[in-house]
Amino acid sequence: MIKVGIVGGTGYTGVELLRLLAQHPQVEIAAITSRGEAGTPVADYFPSLRGKVGLSFCDPAQASLEGCDLVFFATPNGIAMQQAAALLAAGVRVIDLAADFRIADVAVWEKWYGMNHASPLLLADAVYGLPEINRERIRSAQLVANPGCYPTAVQLGFWPLIEAGCVDIGHLIADCKSGVSGAGRKAETQILFAEASDNFKAYAVAGHRHWPEIRQGLGRAAGAEVGLTFVPHLTPMIRGIHATLYARVTEERDFQSLFEQRYAGEAFVDVMPAGSHPDTRSVRAANVCRIALHRPQGGDMLVVLSVIDNLTKGAAGQAVQNMNLMFGFDECIGLSQIPVLP
Amino acid sequence: MIKVGIVGGTGYTGVELLRLLAQHPQVEIAAITSRGEAGTPVADYFPSLRGKVGLSFCDPAQASLEGCDLVFFATPNGIAMQQAAALLAAGVRVIDLAADFRIADVAVWEKWYGMNHASPLLLADAVYGLPEINRERIRSAQLVANPGCYPTAVQLGFWPLIEAGCVDIGHLIADCKSGVSGAGRKAETQILFAEASDNFKAYAVAGHRHWPEIRQGLGRAAGAEVGLTFVPHLTPMIRGIHATLYARVTEERDFQSLFEQRYAGEAFVDVMPAGSHPDTRSVRAANVCRIALHRPQGGDMLVVLSVIDNLTKGAAGQAVQNMNLMFGFDECIGLSQIPVLP
Amino acid sequence: MIKVGIVGGTGYTGVELLRLLAQHPQVEIAAITSRGEAGTPVADYFPSLRGKVGLSFCDPAQASLEGCDLVFFATPNGIAMQQAAALLAAGVRVIDLAADFRIADVAVWEKWYGMNHASPLLLADAVYGLPEINRERIRSAQLVANPGCYPTAVQLGFWPLIEAGCVDIGHLIADCKSGVSGAGRKAETQILFAEASDNFKAYAVAGHRHWPEIRQGLGRAAGAEVGLTFVPHLTPMIRGIHATLYARVTEERDFQSLFEQRYAGEAFVDVMPAGSHPDTRSVRAANVCRIALHRPQGGDMLVVLSVIDNLTKGAAGQAVQNMNLMFGFDECIGLSQIPVLP
Amino acid sequence: MIKVGIVGGTGYTGVELLRLLAQHPQVEIAAITSRGEAGTPVADYFPSLRGKVGLSFCDPAQASLEGCDLVFFATPNGIAMQQAAALLAAGVRVIDLAADFRIADVAVWEKWYGMNHASPLLLADAVYGLPEINRERIRSAQLVANPGCYPTAVQLGFWPLIEAGCVDIGHLIADCKSGVSGAGRKAETQILFAEASDNFKAYAVAGHRHWPEIRQGLGRAAGAEVGLTFVPHLTPMIRGIHATLYARVTEERDFQSLFEQRYAGEAFVDVMPAGSHPDTRSVRAANVCRIALHRPQGGDMLVVLSVIDNLTKGAAGQAVQNMNLMFGFDECIGLSQIPVLP
Repeated sequence: MIKVGIVGGTGYTGVELLRLLAQHPQVEIAAITSRGEAGTPVADYFPSLRGKVGLSFCDPAQASLEGCDLVFFATPNGIAMQQAAALLAAGVRVIDLAADFRIADVAVWEKWYGMNHASPLLLADAVYGLPEINRERIRSAQLVANPGCYPTAVQLGFWPLIEAGCVDIGHLIADCKSGVSGAGRKAETQILFAEASDNFKAYAVAGHRHWPEIRQGLGRAAGAEVGLTFVPHLTPMIRGIHATLYARVTEERDFQSLFEQRYAGEAFVDVMPAGSHPDTRSVRAANVCRIALHRPQGGDMLVVLSVIDNLTKGAAGQAVQNMNLMFGFDECIGLSQIPVLP
Repeated sequence: MIKVGIVGGTGYTGVELLRLLAQHPQVEIAAITSRGEAGTPVADYFPSLRGKVGLSFCDPAQASLEGCDLVFFATPNGIAMQQAAALLAAGVRVIDLAADFRIADVAVWEKWYGMNHASPLLLADAVYGLPEINRERIRSAQLVANPGCYPTAVQLGFWPLIEAGCVDIGHLIADCKSGVSGAGRKAETQILFAEASDNFKAYAVAGHRHWPEIRQGLGRAAGAEVGLTFVPHLTPMIRGIHATLYARVTEERDFQSLFEQRYAGEAFVDVMPAGSHPDTRSVRAANVCRIALHRPQGGDMLVVLSVIDNLTKGAAGQAVQNMNLMFGFDECIGLSQIPVLP
Repeated sequence: MIKVGIVGGTGYTGVELLRLLAQHPQVEIAAITSRGEAGTPVADYFPSLRGKVGLSFCDPAQASLEGCDLVFFATPNGIAMQQAAALLAAGVRVIDLAADFRIADVAVWEKWYGMNHASPLLLADAVYGLPEINRERIRSAQLVANPGCYPTAVQLGFWPLIEAGCVDIGHLIADCKSGVSGAGRKAETQILFAEASDNFKAYAVAGHRHWPEIRQGLGRAAGAEVGLTFVPHLTPMIRGIHATLYARVTEERDFQSLFEQRYAGEAFVDVMPAGSHPDTRSVRAANVCRIALHRPQGGDMLVVLSVIDNLTKGAAGQAVQNMNLMFGFDECIGLSQIPVLP
Repeated sequence: MIKVGIVGGTGYTGVELLRLLAQHPQVEIAAITSRGEAGTPVADYFPSLRGKVGLSFCDPAQASLEGCDLVFFATPNGIAMQQAAALLAAGVRVIDLAADFRIADVAVWEKWYGMNHASPLLLADAVYGLPEINRERIRSAQLVANPGCYPTAVQLGFWPLIEAGCVDIGHLIADCKSGVSGAGRKAETQILFAEASDNFKAYAVAGHRHWPEIRQGLGRAAGAEVGLTFVPHLTPMIRGIHATLYARVTEERDFQSLFEQRYAGEAFVDVMPAGSHPDTRSVRAANVCRIALHRPQGGDMLVVLSVIDNLTKGAAGQAVQNMNLMFGFDECIGLSQIPVLP
């Protein structure tokens, strides 16, 4: 049994963390902070948690997070980098669900996130929390950078191909579609129901912050810089990411076997039969990535379909998976939810 | 550990039963039947169950349901009444999620369901499976008629008032809104996405089959016939029922206390603070009914808001709750899912 | 050809007005104001208007609205009451799509809208712009208070019954469901896609500002105070209101004929065959109210279903209809759009 | 004024044709056929047309289509090819909204559509009805093959690049997303609301019938075979197609100017400012294709975003545009609808 704290619990990754942690048999939620909602019972704020979570939000200044074994940051970008160092110094392990520690190159990070990094020295110690790629380093990590939602779906879909060196890494394409919860729980006009419903659009085609994160990961797999075109789209659903990945084959392989072998034994990556069309609802509210391969019309283009729930395998579920690894629990504990269908 | 069978597993109540039972620690799913899909692995049909359910659908004729402790019927109306008698005779207990045993008066049933009842003699033994009303009889029942979705939300909302005799039972109004999954997984034009999305309508205002079921239940509470106007509507969401109930007060009470006391100790009925507005997502994919009371503008009309997930507390979750009672399990086992939000 | 101005054009009623007026053969849009977007071409702000509207938003202080024949206020509540007097004094006629002039009793208005009324003297001259009830007064009005969306659907549905004196006016019930655009184009958390989608809830059951407006109207029809319970709900669609109205019959009539006769000759009210279930998409983007009557199960409760598009017949379309009357145009000009289906 | 007939009017392209033609000043709808609904007033079937269309569906055998100037086929594939020859022989011009005459190579057609072509000799005379590409031939055509929805969006987006010879035509990628109405008004499980809502998936990745149609068109532009990977997806909205197109630049150009010049003077193609993100609602219910260009991160991949309403510019609107050309009307008559927003 470990004691965990959550900093910033009023967003969608926060409430998803609460849903998962409230049922985790090895976890006691010791504190959850919110500047704006200090004093409010969590279950008043999220009635879905009535009878399940008894805590109230507390002011960050009042929370004794140093007494926790682990603190999750479910905050906007730029918060964890200010507070993590003190917690780590106090022996508290940290998982940041935001982007503060995802990019190793501080100059790249500062360019894309538009601020100075408050703890550049921590970047070298931060472990990128994609367990299927980085499991052993996560086990002993003090500070885990939980991956972004798009980067999770895209990296898991491209990884086996790039490791195997059998596609043109200069012209990878990731055409990604996200549910609207990916934009967070912010009062912004463009994600209003009457704007985003019955509508579809691309956004940030010129450049999205997940582009350098994906390139960093795939570059590590390739041992070289990769060329990536990444186009995110907003689709009128609440949860879910569908990544449609295009890679030009440079060396023929049995790609289906390649993927099945790469992910054999992975509890949270499901390589479906060749020719499948995974849909996002098949992973709704569950910590799983489903992948299917296609080779349309006998051409040289391989198409990989990769789906996750952006709030679960793409955020809070993956964070719990990382926590399980860090504390020596069974990796699957607390993550056995079956997707909600329909 | 009990062995259960499911007859008819390809619909929405079927897949919801599978989601709940696959994680129930006291249950082994022994067989699931489908005439049309015999031989198909369940997880091929519902990819959400990949890695969670290893069974294949089997032909009803091949399934040895007699070896089960309990059989659920997740079939269209008119099937259970043909097959239940043989199972009961073999000592198998039965929960029918369809309507075959919900109405005690066979003439009323035959009028509303448009067919002759195949097992009228069983009606006297069938127990109406609304645990909050009928818990003791359910424990010992051999045959449970699982309530309809609308009847669950409406009866739980009206029950305390009618028991207490403090409203005009001649003019009750239930204005109900259901998600589209309530219509089942049937290939019908009117429930296509392009018909039901971004649209709202009433249906069956002249008469809906849940009307006699609700009247039967409320009539038992009142000890007299009740006058009920029931208007169901189709609303563009997948899961959820929102019942807005209107009753004219004939005798003043502390209605909030009345409800809180009536449902004190009930794990699956949540009486919210007066003036709350429960939304359907606060119960999504969970076995709970949330209720809130309003007395607008000081008039004599009491407004009760009652929400459930039509597939969980309104169908499969309630069936599992009934199973728990019938087999002496803790009533809450396997039903602790936290609602999925957002 | 008349010159019109629009004050406040960045909301949903504003863009709907632009859609309708840009195609109206008798109208020249002379100016459209927005404090925040002054200088921005309207078609940059609303790309749906590219090639259709050449104007830019102008600063309210710069707009020479006094040169217009008519000014529409598509502003939040509380703006028109500050600016209308000067325009009227300059001989400009005014239609306010907000609520400033809808309630004749200034004390009632101030209570419900929570501010002092800036032009109480204008209230006596303001004409309530529901053409089917008030056509002659609208023709000569200088200042028209365009009705609210709920009040339009509810009043048109109840009016014939109350005029005829054949229902219990002490216990009217209006259970109303609105699309999310009814909440306006405001950056508020509760109307985000991820909050309002796949969800249903009641709101403001204790009291909604449209309650006194509806009561005022129905009270005029009855010549007496009416008792009304009004419960609004948010439904996950963009446009549309569905009002389900309940009235206890006190005197039998041929209600179908009563409605058909009351609305004979009305271009924008469609009394459907008895037993119909009008859906909101049958009026989407069109200036029409469809009504159907039901008498369920032979009881004494009459059920009236009334649907409109909240932005068209419930706002901008009705405003254009009022404009047509005020300037002696054919009432239907510019309002012949066929609903968009599916 | 011309007389037109519609064969097969109960689907979505049928009702969209009716919406447009009922308001077209040069058209009289003489007959609309439906085998299943013969005798039913069109406005009973589609209440959105009440008061707008007075016709009833008639049996195909009874309809005297030979008296029409033009007949539209809004039928499933395989019908028009059986009936067009007789109409053409009678001097009636024909526009087929289905796929029967879209592919010039009969062997290719028969392979993809899985049936023998009933009128292969007509293929040589059929004119592919994409006005921006084929305007002059359409003017004099007797038989027009109205393009598919995906092919309209994809061809308009790629055309200028291919004509100009400045991209790698061996590796074009079209990642397309369609609203659910694109699947037609068919009672199929997979397009039920509870299946398609809050969900996203690719389909037919192995091969879709629009692939050969797009390749045929682009091949004509290139004067050579093109390599195309086409992945269609189902997105939870009613109307709209969003095509995200990827082409590798082989020769630098001012691509923005290239597109603006190519489509200068086109009423129904809107080249937006570089860097725009057109959304599908900006074309909802209107006959327009909006296009925007991106060159992400300075790479050699050009990204073209192209959006249409699949039922309007992607079907019925384009058919009316073709009709206008064929009969010498102003190309824009009856097609000036402003998109419905929100």
